[in-house]
Order: sequence, then C-alpha cells, then structure tokens
Amino acid sequence: MITLDTIQEAHDRIRPYIHRTPVLTNQTINQRAGADIYFKPENFQKIGAFKARGGVNAVLQLAADELQNGRSIGPVITHSSGNHAQAIAYAARQVGTKAYIVMPRTAPQVKKEAVRGYGAEVIECEPTLEARETGVQEVMARTGATLIHPFDDDRVIAGQATAAKELIEDAGQDKPFDIMMAPVGGGGLLSGMALATHYLSPTTIVIAGEPEGAADAIQSFQSGRVEKAPYINTIADGLLTTLSERTLGYIRQHVTDILTVSDPEIIAAMRLVWERMKIIIEPSCAVPLAVVLKHPDRFAGKKVGIILTGGNVDLGKLPF
Amino acid sequence: MITLDTIQEAHDRIRPYIHRTPVLTNQTINQRAGADIYFKPENFQKIGAFKARGGVNAVLQLAADELQNGRSIGPVITHSSGNHAQAIAYAARQVGTKAYIVMPRTAPQVKKEAVRGYGAEVIECEPTLEARETGVQEVMARTGATLIHPFDDDRVIAGQATAAKELIEDAGQDKPFDIMMAPVGGGGLLSGMALATHYLSPTTIVIAGEPEGAADAIQSFQSGRVEKAPYINTIADGLLTTLSERTLGYIRQHVTDILTVSDPEIIAAMRLVWERMKIIIEPSCAVPLAVVLKHPDRFAGKKVGIILTGGNVDLGKLPF
Repeated sequence: MITLDTIQEAHDRIRPYIHRTPVLTNQTINQRAGADIYFKPENFQKIGAFKARGGVNAVLQLAADELQNGRSIGPVITHSSGNHAQAIAYAARQVGTKAYIVMPRTAPQVKKEAVRGYGAEVIECEPTLEARETGVQEVMARTGATLIHPFDDDRVIAGQATAAKELIEDAGQDKPFDIMMAPVGGGGLLSGMALATHYLSPTTIVIAGEPEGAADAIQSFQSGRVEKAPYINTIADGLLTTLSERTLGYIRQHVTDILTVSDPEIIAAMRLVWERMKIIIEPSCAVPLAVVLKHPDRFAGKKVGIILTGGNVDLGKLPF
Repeated sequence: MITLDTIQEAHDRIRPYIHRTPVLTNQTINQRAGADIYFKPENFQKIGAFKARGGVNAVLQLAADELQNGRSIGPVITHSSGNHAQAIAYAARQVGTKAYIVMPRTAPQVKKEAVRGYGAEVIECEPTLEARETGVQEVMARTGATLIHPFDDDRVIAGQATAAKELIEDAGQDKPFDIMMAPVGGGGLLSGMALATHYLSPTTIVIAGEPEGAADAIQSFQSGRVEKAPYINTIADGLLTTLSERTLGYIRQHVTDILTVSDPEIIAAMRLVWERMKIIIEPSCAVPLAVVLKHPDRFAGKKVGIILTGGNVDLGKLPF
C-alpha cells in the first residue's frame, strides 16, 4: 500500500542522489497544441532517465531494511536492456554494493558500457524473456543477490512517484493542473504519477499515452486483466513491456484514460521537442505530447503536466 | 566605448525579452576534461541562440534613440543566413516594427520559414557576400530601413556581453572563474565576453576557440590586422566570418589566446554534449569544449565558463 507518507519518505530518501529537474515550457509547442504544457525533463536526471528515482529508492530502502536486521546490504540484480539497468547500477554504487545486470547479448554496446561505467557486472544472455529470467535465477542462486524488478515493486513505484510530486510542487500550486500525463510501458511511472496526483492534486486527472504498436495497457485497462499487445511494432522501445497485476491495479484505480498514437505521430512529436526545446528525448518520451497534438479537442485550453521520461537515444540511428 | 554601465544598461533593457538561461554542469564531461566546467546553454535562449541578446539590445536602443528625437522607430534590416536573422526578426516584432532580412536563396527553407514566423520579410539574393550587401543597399534605399550589423556594432556587442555577465553572476561569485571561453566568428560574442569579464571578474582570463577550417581570427589576433582565413572548410558554419576592426580591437585588448580545433574534434565534443548533457547544440557551439579536451595541460584543474552559443541544427543533416 503506497500512501502519501510512502512517497514523501521516498523523496527524502533519494534527494541526495537525484537531480531536482526543472520545469520547462515552450511557446511554439503551446501554440501548436492549443494547451498550456509544463514539461518535466527527466532526460536531465541522473543516468539520463526518471528510472534513477525508482532504482535508488528501492536499493536504499533495501539497504535500510537490512541494516535494521543487523545485516549490510548484499548484491542486487536485475534484467534490463534499458534505463533500469543503469539505474540499478548507479544506485548500487551509491550504497557500495555490487550489481549484476543480465542483458541480452544483442543490446547496444554503448548501453553495456554505460552499465559497466557505473561499476556493475554485465551478464549476457540470449535475447528472450525466458533467457533473461533464467540468467537472473542462475546468478541469484550463485550469489544470493536480491532482485529489483523494473516496475512490479512498490519501492520502485514510490520512487517514480517523486517525479510527478516535484512537478506538482513546482508548477501546480497557484493553479492546479487539469491533466497529468506519462507514457505507459510496465506502468511503474504511470502508477507513481497516478498515486502522487491522487494525494497531492486531487482535482487533476491522469491520462496515459501508449504506442499503437505496443497497445497492451489500453486493452488491460479496459478488460481488467493483464493482456499482451496484439502485435509489437514501434520505435518507442522503452514501452514494450506489459503491465503487472500491481500496476494494473493502481492504473485502473487512478488513471482516467489511455490514448494511443502511431509511430509517425511519435516521431513528429519527438522532432518538435528536439527542434524547438533543443533537448534530446527518446521516442518513448514523446508519446504523451503526440497524444496532445492528436486530440486537440481533449486538451484545448487545459493546463497539462508531462514527464519527459528520458534521453538515452542512439545518435547513430535517428528516425529523421 | 563600452563601459560596465553600457553592459548593465543593455541587460536591464533586454531582460523582459530574453531568458535568463541556467548554468549546467556534467560530471562525466568534467572527468573527461579534468576541469571544472560551467556551461551557459544559450541554445535555450529565445530564437535558440545568444544572438537574441545583441539583436534585441540594438533594436530597443534604436527605438529609444528615435523616441528621444521625437520619432518612432522605422524598419530595420540585416543580411544573415543564420541566427542573427532570427534575432532581428524577433527583436523587431517586440517593438512593433518591420524587419527586412536579406538571405541567400540557397539558405535552408526551414531558416527562411523561421524568420517569416517572426513576422519579418525575407528578401532572397544570390549566395555571395556582394549580392547580400547589394540587396541590403537596395532595400535601404527603397524603404529607409536601418541596418543592424551582426557584430560590428557596440549595441550588439553590449547585448552579447550579458551572457557572460549572467554566467559570472550565477557561477563565478564564491570562487571566480579561471578561464572564460567562447567560439569566435565575427567576434561579437567574444568581444562582449572579454569586456564583461574584464569589468566583472578581472582575475579571469578569456580564451577563444576557432575551427582550423576558418582560422582567420587567430591570424588577425597575431598580426593585428583583419585577415581572411587561409581556407574555409569546416562544419562550424556559424564561424565563417572574419573579424571587424572594432571586434579585433576589443579582442586584442582583453583576450589572452585563441586556440584552433579540427572538425573531427568539434564533432566529438558536440556528440559528447548531446549524449551526456541531453541538449542539442550546433557544431560552432562545441568548439570551446573541443579546445578544452584537446589541451588538458592548459585546463587541468581550472574553473572554466563556456557559453553554449546555440542549438539551431538541421536534424536531417547530422554528422553522426
């Protein structure tokens, strides 16, 4: 159960290890959207993505729990090809413990190097979910490492919630947001945003954006069961995961709607942010803005908060 | 004669029309450089570049001078294919006057559109300096417009000086900068930085960066005469211009050194900023950082301030 206190405690816990990212606005984008948008650029966050928040909170809380039991924290482990890998590697280094990261051998070399750069050990596996999970089990058996799941973990969700909390504190006080928005993959950030908004800005609704080519959350949201996407084909490679029972529960309780966008719409929104805001965001990150631009009827005249989730792109493979 | 008062008045004059850009630091880049670098991201400035400062100051001062003579400001004109064009267009709109911008017909369509987007009239000419100057003369004769030169103008230089002034105010108080850095093209920004640093942080030296493929300023700096580059071949297309007598004078008086870098060094520094800072900068803008990375002996352990001059790049033509 994540309460307002849980989120506040998470924020106090992680504050020394994360950036309080600023709030950005852009006149051209507001004119184009017909809305009043406040962006929270978590691409400027440690490790280049909001995932630093959840990873650090989970590892620090684990360390505190172990200490209370008279033990020091042991190694931690996760499997990820993306930002969560770097987040856990970064977090482990802060508490002086070892991190094992199981990564598909096909993951870009630059991502493996980034993880190693934070002092973690990369264990390569075949690029299937099964191989990843087997890899994790083997290392856990061998080392006693504790698994930190990318999103199916209340400590991680409470950490991600601090991004929405900061946005509400910094730009939603005099006039509350009408709408808060995040993209949805596994649902960790969206769950955290939904909970933080519920507690801190109860008149604000939460709307998620999802790629058409990974449209599992919208189906799960409608049916009430965790479902797979009918097909996977999208540039938004940070949003391919399905929800968990836990995140689906939070989302069904506190999110108003999930809207989908196509890859051309995502790329156009991403390009607009690069060109007009001069900041580098990942395709996954452009999904909420793409939703706003696609549905002027839903967002006209509204005050909208959007988390820009991350900026870890391969500059050698841009869609422009 | 630009005094401390001139710069202070310019700052007060332009403040309502420009952003006070933040100061950014990056651990990875500091480790790589072995120095303590404070970046001032003028890519987040109005029109995406520091040139908004000089353009606005010149146009507002012109308007004030005309008013003192009992006249309202007439049209203004400049020739530019780059950021100064947008700066004058933006500035003219703030005072409600017309701007004519003479641009080579070969300039990217997106730049012409940006200038028109600020309400200015684009006059196309052949892509030679002679055609540009003839174009300006014709429009001036026809419309009575006042020319605002991109850098050979004390009002413009005083405006550009405010970028260095802000950087010194925001990050150079407790411990003064050892070195302030800017790229050099026509020398407007560098002159402004040199003057602001001279008045506000007199123990700080100023070092400029210049592309090897447009190495005119270093020659002029050494000889004391305005010289042309031996050849022009660089990706840093904002730095092709030669100095004027005016800017050479300021630079010879207040700049300690000019150091050159190759295009591969510029591109590597640009990529480092994109990847690690998640912000979009132009090639011209990466020149000072490339200088720092090339000369670890000169910069080791130093506190360095760098103006990131702008972020107007063509995403369809990236050097990665």
